[in-house]
Amino acid sequence: MRLTTITTENGTSAARITDGTVVALPYPDVVALLGDPRWRTAASSGGTDHGDASALEYNLPAVRPGKTMCCGLNYRSHVLESRTRRELPKYPTLFAKFPDTLTGALSPICLPHASAMVDWEAELGVVIGTPARRVSPGQALDHVAGLTAVNDVSMRDWQRRSSEWLQGKNFEASTPVGPAVVTLDEFDNPLDLAISCDVDGQVMQQARTSELLFSIADLVSYASTFTTLRPGDLIVTGTMSGVASAREDQPFLKDGQVVTVTIEGIGSCRNEFYAEA
Amino acid sequence: MRLTTITTENGTSAARITDGTVVALPYPDVVALLGDPRWRTAASSGGTDHGDASALEYNLPAVRPGKTMCCGLNYRSHVLESRTRRELPKYPTLFAKFPDTLTGALSPICLPHASAMVDWEAELGVVIGTPARRVSPGQALDHVAGLTAVNDVSMRDWQRRSSEWLQGKNFEASTPVGPAVVTLDEFDNPLDLAISCDVDGQVMQQARTSELLFSIADLVSYASTFTTLRPGDLIVTGTMSGVASAREDQPFLKDGQVVTVTIEGIGSCRNEFYAEA
Repeated sequence: MRLTTITTENGTSAARITDGTVVALPYPDVVALLGDPRWRTAASSGGTDHGDASALEYNLPAVRPGKTMCCGLNYRSHVLESRTRRELPKYPTLFAKFPDTLTGALSPICLPHASAMVDWEAELGVVIGTPARRVSPGQALDHVAGLTAVNDVSMRDWQRRSSEWLQGKNFEASTPVGPAVVTLDEFDNPLDLAISCDVDGQVMQQARTSELLFSIADLVSYASTFTTLRPGDLIVTGTMSGVASAREDQPFLKDGQVVTVTIEGIGSCRNEFYAEA
Repeated sequence: MRLTTITTENGTSAARITDGTVVALPYPDVVALLGDPRWRTAASSGGTDHGDASALEYNLPAVRPGKTMCCGLNYRSHVLESRTRRELPKYPTLFAKFPDTLTGALSPICLPHASAMVDWEAELGVVIGTPARRVSPGQALDHVAGLTAVNDVSMRDWQRRSSEWLQGKNFEASTPVGPAVVTLDEFDNPLDLAISCDVDGQVMQQARTSELLFSIADLVSYASTFTTLRPGDLIVTGTMSGVASAREDQPFLKDGQVVTVTIEGIGSCRNEFYAEA
């Protein structure tokens, strides 16, 4: 199934996308849907016809959970290109995004006056389906509802202002999530997907998710050691080499550029960046 | 006014504490109350008698918002005692806590098997009252509802596993918040309050909140540059010297110890720590 959150006349709704048609489901969003222990049944049947999928605006994050945990330094290629690290990490490097930081897969994104170094990061997002607390890596995938695409847009100047990256990773409505949460059963192999990022059509990042240093199962298990992962919670798994800040010409994003993050079997976040008025 | 969130027969409720009496207010919690633009009026009048304040369990965080932002390295005395930093910071060092990390002012707190280095951090908490986006330091206090006490309990071994502190700051139900949100008008000078932490009655930390390197107004203004601070959101302002990890004998918390964080005019978070079964 492909699940997403749509804008409706009365607010928002969870929706299933089947054969090019949008079916609105009786839940305010995908987080609420996944919070129903019977979500697989509830999502796969019933609902209200909401028209053609090609007309969807994708102006809301596919999920906007209370807990979004991101892993840094999780592809060898990105560890090697980064400024300060050269060794592979022994533990996941984790930081958070606030719900207000997330935005839609097709939403325009603001280049704020406050930052001159806005960068892209193509990442696989993992969406929790059933509560996970102290689960082993072997059990972890049973707690995953599906996968989505994320652009972990980073204001590098702010990220580097202190040891903690949070402020450079949490500009309001800067992180697109979507276009859908695709359930694991939809993939031939959900652990080995092509992932890429292009800017105005020029490929900047390219990898396979099988290259993750800490796998989906590792990350779910690790995070569940210290907190409960709840239905809808999002783990963002890190980016590969090719970000602007690691390139010689430092091509940070400019007004009017379009960044597309694509993951095999999921689709694309495609966002135009605009200079703040 | 003193506002807190209480457990009721039907779930939870916002409450006002007046003259030793608890008055339940028709909102599920203090975040929902502050979300009502008329919260000052709604909180100060009406409500339902809920009995004697001395009987309150304080087993819920006074506020549990979607956005809890903590500032590290914000007292000179703590910067100087910390392991890796000696210079005063130019910008606030910000990290996040998830809603699941927060707990009640009197709740017992688990010492997990996974950590051997559980430490205390007495901190002033600032609770937002009206939305703040790009507010100047001069405007910032107008957006603050009140102040509360926080113990930013830190698992130092986990905090040091990577550059990002999040995992050592987000063990489930490890951070007490309360006992109440005290509105700014209750203080003679809300910017200069005595704050302390004791362990089994022995004073470990002691300062005044006027020593903050980045003041309440600075932090609200700074965070509002990149995100919207919403009613109920919590900014935790950092700790002073005297944490276990900076002491020669490294007295990390042990089974049965009681940690009390007290702030003048607010009261105490008083939590017994127990070893995981």
